[in-house]
Amino acid sequence: MIRTGVQQMARGLCQIMGREISKGNFNTNIRQQMTPRGTFQLPWSSINSVRTMAVLPWPFSFQPRDFSLPNLSWGSDMRRLYEHYNSQCEVETDDGEKKWGVWRRLPSYNRSLKYATGTGRVSFTWMECVCTKRHALTTYCGVYLSKIIQSKARLFTRNIREQGAAFEYVVFVNKQEQKCVCVFQAGHLLEGPPGHVHGGAIATMIDTVTGTHATYLSGPVMTANLNINYRSPIPLGSTVLLTCSLDKKEGRKTFVSCQVTNTDSSKLHTEATGLFLSITMGDLLGG
Amino acid sequence: MIRTGVQQMARGLCQIMGREISKGNFNTNIRQQMTPRGTFQLPWSSINSVRTMAVLPWPFSFQPRDFSLPNLSWGSDMRRLYEHYNSQCEVETDDGEKKWGVWRRLPSYNRSLKYATGTGRVSFTWMECVCTKRHALTTYCGVYLSKIIQSKARLFTRNIREQGAAFEYVVFVNKQEQKCVCVFQAGHLLEGPPGHVHGGAIATMIDTVTGTHATYLSGPVMTANLNINYRSPIPLGSTVLLTCSLDKKEGRKTFVSCQVTNTDSSKLHTEATGLFLSITMGDLLGG
Repeated sequence: MIRTGVQQMARGLCQIMGREISKGNFNTNIRQQMTPRGTFQLPWSSINSVRTMAVLPWPFSFQPRDFSLPNLSWGSDMRRLYEHYNSQCEVETDDGEKKWGVWRRLPSYNRSLKYATGTGRVSFTWMECVCTKRHALTTYCGVYLSKIIQSKARLFTRNIREQGAAFEYVVFVNKQEQKCVCVFQAGHLLEGPPGHVHGGAIATMIDTVTGTHATYLSGPVMTANLNINYRSPIPLGSTVLLTCSLDKKEGRKTFVSCQVTNTDSSKLHTEATGLFLSITMGDLLGG
Repeated sequence: MIRTGVQQMARGLCQIMGREISKGNFNTNIRQQMTPRGTFQLPWSSINSVRTMAVLPWPFSFQPRDFSLPNLSWGSDMRRLYEHYNSQCEVETDDGEKKWGVWRRLPSYNRSLKYATGTGRVSFTWMECVCTKRHALTTYCGVYLSKIIQSKARLFTRNIREQGAAFEYVVFVNKQEQKCVCVFQAGHLLEGPPGHVHGGAIATMIDTVTGTHATYLSGPVMTANLNINYRSPIPLGSTVLLTCSLDKKEGRKTFVSCQVTNTDSSKLHTEATGLFLSITMGDLLGG
């Protein structure tokens, strides 16, 4: 069963590398499969600079759940902030046409690797990895490899099915201002001190969002350092805002800072800096 | 239903404060309920200095699962290291008597708050919180409070039921050398980079273990700072060793450092420092 799956993948990989990619269809396939159903769609030709999730094209079908979309567990704060940023993801021109705004919502998936009746379904998230065309094949190889290593693996922040029980979050990026925000609602399974969010869960969100921001700006990265100052505990069940900005880039290094505040930014809960190193798959495999 | 539970607790609290504690039975109750079934038991009168988990006494029964005990998901490395440290938790004297060794295994619970047929069952873990007699009542109030706030809350590191799927770990402390070790097996639900552990999951274990060590040495604390350097990715499914030591204590501050290595300590995966502040429940409530 496993061997059959691996053979399927190997065949798919060869076909993709030999046929799909050489014909320039790789990104077309990604585009077609990436478009969230029922959401606003812009012509992809106009957003060549937009970095998109890397996903497996044919022979795998692709219908993952986008965890960054609202669900019934979201409270009023979470919904309000989502609407606030989401409404700035598209704007209407004087001619009545719609185009991208300054903000962009990043879709968010778990890493599901399932086989059913011989048809593979694959989605992939690597630190909410967004990647450019030039990184797509590299990332594809990462998917291929990790599929062999751990077929049951799931992204840490999306490993609990019950809506609202753990990490509910959505990330928006603003390339123009090199900023990134994340609206985060902390569920009851994230407890540390009684009634409050575990320091590790806060660190997890900081790593996720600063890493996403660094990846968005610099391509695939790995976390090299996180320095986190916990100022004030976060009550369990509450919604907070993570705001990230680029500090500087030096060669392979990307420096990002992050603040975790309440929803109106009047109270600072946590602040952190993150250092990220640009990597290739070789770095990861040799780690 | 909730009100009934709260009334039960309030009555229990008054009775405990007015009757049980005044009669000096509080710790006796804890002792009786804390003893893991089927494990080696020492006379508690001989270990007054030993810090124990704070749990709710009467009217609540107490039979929580200790997550730090071996289960079928543990691999050979995890079992071997567990046995290595566990065998040093008790020693035999020349007279053939058994007494505590230099290491001590800390039990580990999730935070379960359940009501069934009118009988409350309560266990409590706060950053693997271990506390002295003088902190027992304070901690009890924390349990009482958090029960009202979030009846479904669970400790972040123990929130997944499937054995081996997420955090499998056991903490041993050595008061004599002011050291602490944690054997940690990373399950498939902790993925970050493909096939490797999420940086947030590593941060979570570092926060948990350094926090436990600080609490063991200084009483209840909150994390003030974590500074984490990620040196080498940790493969998913592998077992690693977290070794913590006390750097210094200054007033309310406790400084702890931590290294995450492979099982024979030949490869450094992560290193970190943690600063912890001693707190009262008032600090937490006012936060």
